[in-house]
Amino acid sequence: MSTNIDIQESTKETKGKAALIASPARPGGWKKGIAIMDFILRLGAIAAALGAAASMGTSDQTLPFFTQFFQFEASYDSFTTFQFFVITMAIVAGYLVLSLPFSIVAIIRPHAPGPRLFLIILDSVFLTLATASAASAASIVYLAHNGNQDTNWLAICNQFGDFCAQTSGAVVSSFVAVVVFVFLVVMSALALGKH
Amino acid sequence: MSTNIDIQESTKETKGKAALIASPARPGGWKKGIAIMDFILRLGAIAAALGAAASMGTSDQTLPFFTQFFQFEASYDSFTTFQFFVITMAIVAGYLVLSLPFSIVAIIRPHAPGPRLFLIILDSVFLTLATASAASAASIVYLAHNGNQDTNWLAICNQFGDFCAQTSGAVVSSFVAVVVFVFLVVMSALALGKH
Repeated sequence: MSTNIDIQESTKETKGKAALIASPARPGGWKKGIAIMDFILRLGAIAAALGAAASMGTSDQTLPFFTQFFQFEASYDSFTTFQFFVITMAIVAGYLVLSLPFSIVAIIRPHAPGPRLFLIILDSVFLTLATASAASAASIVYLAHNGNQDTNWLAICNQFGDFCAQTSGAVVSSFVAVVVFVFLVVMSALALGKH
Repeated sequence: MSTNIDIQESTKETKGKAALIASPARPGGWKKGIAIMDFILRLGAIAAALGAAASMGTSDQTLPFFTQFFQFEASYDSFTTFQFFVITMAIVAGYLVLSLPFSIVAIIRPHAPGPRLFLIILDSVFLTLATASAASAASIVYLAHNGNQDTNWLAICNQFGDFCAQTSGAVVSSFVAVVVFVFLVVMSALALGKH
C-alpha cells in the first residue's frame, strides 16, 4: 500500500513507449505482463489448433494390398469423430485469430475488466469445444491402436501405420491447444480477481 | 454511482438475517444471487456426475445366446474409455462436494474475490476433465450404435440393447454436468469482472 502514491505517474508512463518493460514493483505491471503472455499463448494455440486440423485433414493412406477385413483406403473421412475433429479445430483456430484484437486491447488497457471478461467467457466455451473434439478423437485413435477384444473390433494400425501416426500427431497437437486454453482461462481469472 | 453512499449500510444488512432476500437495487445484491445460483447449480452437477458414474458403472448385460462375433457379456469393463469415464465422473463429483463449502463462503461474503477465484480456476480444470471423459465415452457409444464400415467394426447395439441404453444415458448425464460447469465458470467470471 506504500506505493499507492505512484499510481498516477506510472499509468502515464505505461501509455508511453516503455510499455513492454513491465517492472514488477509497479502496481498493475503484472497485469500487463499477463496480457502479453496471453497474446503469446494465443499465437501458440493458433499454431497447435491449425496443425491439428491440417494433420488430421490430410491423413489418408492407401494400401497396396487387400485383406479379408480391411479395405484399400483409410482417411479421416472414415470416422465421423475425425470429421468433427477437423471442423472443430478449424473453428477453434478461427476463434483464436478473432480473439487476438481483444488480447491486444487487454495489453493496452491492463486494468479494464471488459476485454478480459469477454475473453474468459468465450475461452471457457471454446475450451470445452476443443477438449470434446480432442478427447473423442483420442478414444478413436486408442481403438485404432489397440482394438477391442470383447466387441471384436480389430486394431487397424498394423495395416495403416502412417494413417495412425498422423492422426495420433493431430490428437497430441490438439491437447497442446487444450492445455494452452486452460492456462489462458486461469491467467484471465487471476487478472480479473486481483485488484 | 449515486448509490455509492449506501454501500456501508447495505453491507451491514447483508450480514444480518435478511441475507437470502437479495433486492436487485442494492449494490452487490446480484453477486449474492449469483453465489446462491452457483451453490444450487453445484448440487445439480453433483447429481448429474454421480448419476453418470453410477449408470455407467452398473452397465452390464449378459446375452442368453452366442453368435460368431460377440461374446456372452458386455460391461463397462470391456472399454478402457468407459473405465476412465467412471473414474473421472467419480473424481468430478468428489471435487464438487468438496467445493460446496467455498460456494457457501461466496454466499456469505459476496464481495470477497478469493473464494470465487479459487472456484473458477479449479472449475475450469475439472470442466476440462469432465468434458474429456464425456466426449470420449460419447464417441465410443456412437461407434457401438453405428459401427464403422471402413474398419469393419460392427455395431453391437443390436445385441446389447440394454447395455447401449445405459451407457448412452450415462453420457447424456455427463454432458449435463459439463453444461452446468460452463455456466459455473461464466457466472464466476461475471461476478469477478464487475465491481
